[in-house]
Amino acid sequence: MLDEERLHRALIGAPRSRAQLNTPVLVLDRDALGRNLTKMAELARQRGVALRPHAKTHKSVDIARRQLAHGAVGICCAKLGEAEVFAAANVQSILITSPVVTPQAIARLARLNAQLEQLIVVVDHPDNAAALAQAVRSRRLQVLIDVDPGIRRTGVVTPEAALALWREIQGLPALQYRGVQYYCGLQQHVAAYEERRAAIAERTAYLQGVIALLTEHAGKPEIISGSGTGTHQIDAELGVFTEWQVGSYAFMDRQYADCQLESTPGQAFEFSLFVETSVVSANTSGIATCDAGFKALATDGGAPVIVAGAPEGATYHFMGDEHGLVVDAPLKHVWQLGDGLRLAVPHCDPTVNLYDAYHVVSGDVLVDIWPVSARGRSR
Amino acid sequence: MLDEERLHRALIGAPRSRAQLNTPVLVLDRDALGRNLTKMAELARQRGVALRPHAKTHKSVDIARRQLAHGAVGICCAKLGEAEVFAAANVQSILITSPVVTPQAIARLARLNAQLEQLIVVVDHPDNAAALAQAVRSRRLQVLIDVDPGIRRTGVVTPEAALALWREIQGLPALQYRGVQYYCGLQQHVAAYEERRAAIAERTAYLQGVIALLTEHAGKPEIISGSGTGTHQIDAELGVFTEWQVGSYAFMDRQYADCQLESTPGQAFEFSLFVETSVVSANTSGIATCDAGFKALATDGGAPVIVAGAPEGATYHFMGDEHGLVVDAPLKHVWQLGDGLRLAVPHCDPTVNLYDAYHVVSGDVLVDIWPVSARGRSR
Repeated sequence: MLDEERLHRALIGAPRSRAQLNTPVLVLDRDALGRNLTKMAELARQRGVALRPHAKTHKSVDIARRQLAHGAVGICCAKLGEAEVFAAANVQSILITSPVVTPQAIARLARLNAQLEQLIVVVDHPDNAAALAQAVRSRRLQVLIDVDPGIRRTGVVTPEAALALWREIQGLPALQYRGVQYYCGLQQHVAAYEERRAAIAERTAYLQGVIALLTEHAGKPEIISGSGTGTHQIDAELGVFTEWQVGSYAFMDRQYADCQLESTPGQAFEFSLFVETSVVSANTSGIATCDAGFKALATDGGAPVIVAGAPEGATYHFMGDEHGLVVDAPLKHVWQLGDGLRLAVPHCDPTVNLYDAYHVVSGDVLVDIWPVSARGRSR
Repeated sequence: MLDEERLHRALIGAPRSRAQLNTPVLVLDRDALGRNLTKMAELARQRGVALRPHAKTHKSVDIARRQLAHGAVGICCAKLGEAEVFAAANVQSILITSPVVTPQAIARLARLNAQLEQLIVVVDHPDNAAALAQAVRSRRLQVLIDVDPGIRRTGVVTPEAALALWREIQGLPALQYRGVQYYCGLQQHVAAYEERRAAIAERTAYLQGVIALLTEHAGKPEIISGSGTGTHQIDAELGVFTEWQVGSYAFMDRQYADCQLESTPGQAFEFSLFVETSVVSANTSGIATCDAGFKALATDGGAPVIVAGAPEGATYHFMGDEHGLVVDAPLKHVWQLGDGLRLAVPHCDPTVNLYDAYHVVSGDVLVDIWPVSARGRSR
């Protein structure tokens, strides 16, 4: 164990330990996390929808266990490598939301299927269904037909292709058809609620056509898995999904805070995840350099919001791999070396993937350190 | 050890093992790396400049050892946490290129200084110099004055501030002044050689003014550390630096390949670093989805170049955390599930930081697996 890790372990439970962490550090507010988990679990329960949170967001066994304790039926994983990590931690029901395709990955999938109570994987091509069926031993592998919502990422692209894939699966006794997956990634971040509602309603009408055709031949799908933090309330109204794959709600991030997630204005979930950073250079009035850059914050979602440590209106700007610039536009505020800044992350999933651990706080006290169990497990 | 890691270890030395790796995977061409290391080492030797490669790029003990074997005088680290990793691997001369400022980090720095033959750290503020001096025990800490090349990231912002900082250091017997650091980050990626030359010549004239003032009072700086892969040939001509902090030359990346690095056209260094990815969905002619997205490629440098597995002119487009879209613009090429694609990375440093290991190849054979030793060590 390196110096820094030993020091942080020794801080657990100490007064004001949050401010003594080495930076940049990924900080998780345990209480805000708990409130977010409770809120989504209650909503799903009220609506009679199963909750299968997406673990690609947090990659954390500790958080997955809390979601299961809140009533989740299982978890989603984006990649097989994540599923292996959660299976090793005894999470027994996992849906892999992206096709598993190469021979080496299919061999691993077949082994995982023999270990778990329930492994489900999506398929979007008859060749892949055939390859999966050939690899599976001991017990049947459960599959969902992945339906493309029109972005050409994954999924069958027409209702007829869905039906043809169902027929292929019917001819493969090693596979068990359970239903469909439909993830509208493009619609999650439409900022205005009504615009997002219209967009998702239109896409849901298309899904209903696919489901109608499948139902005619295969019976009603048992599982219709989809939704996300951006559209969950609208999806609840539309009532098509049997389970929700929501992920970001646990943490929130700046991208979702920029959207009105609920029909009534206000932020639906609290920021529970932060990158805390320190001023390392301050030689110009109104400008300071902090120690969080491309390696501390994923850049795909734009800049983070400063939530503490700077005057109202101050902004963060990426300054390369290791640094960020914070600017107080009137060029007045004078930062001191070592000043702390708290950032709400722009996009939670790939930012979490940069860290080995969550430093879990309650108020200003470090209360635990949780590993990012599946960090880097992209294959 | 998880399934995937065990499988990859078993592939070392096997014929055509490169194509059997689970994807997305960070692949390092050992032979191309060797040629890049040799080329830069020879150039530095010819010019009589010390080579102190920046280890923030590769974060690899294996690569640092090869650079030292090629005559490097030591390495640079961007962060203290990286330096701790290299020190634990017995790298004995390290320059930390960013100020170390918080009390908790300064305490770690003082411990590291007691362990290493040579630890050098940059300073850019009298308060920081005083705090360092107070923490240092046993042996003097070597410092360079960091000079801002005009981007307000780190460094003193005027020649007079450099002199004032030198005076402060003179009053602190625990510190040993060794010279200056000057890294022109903004100029590294000016695409045209002559434009870049003019920009760096102008910035070097400023540096010479700072050095003249320091020399008048403090004698000529023993160490003038700076340069980068983008400007090293120009810096060689200008002849001001005593040591080069070049990093990316070991790997090259698309950002540097977009620039004419040498006065004669042609690519100065070879691509030695790749992300290899597989087609996981292919339901539309001319379009396929591969398994490398935001978590497999840093996004700050734009899109990667496809160097194998696609028709000439095909392009990669990020499609979220886990996927990329490859597009053959005439919409003709038909990819098969499992087809491999080889990508040259857009920006090497933050992409390397996403992976636990380099899968080292020679031709189509996996020959070794090297850890990304300091991955995630951002503090």
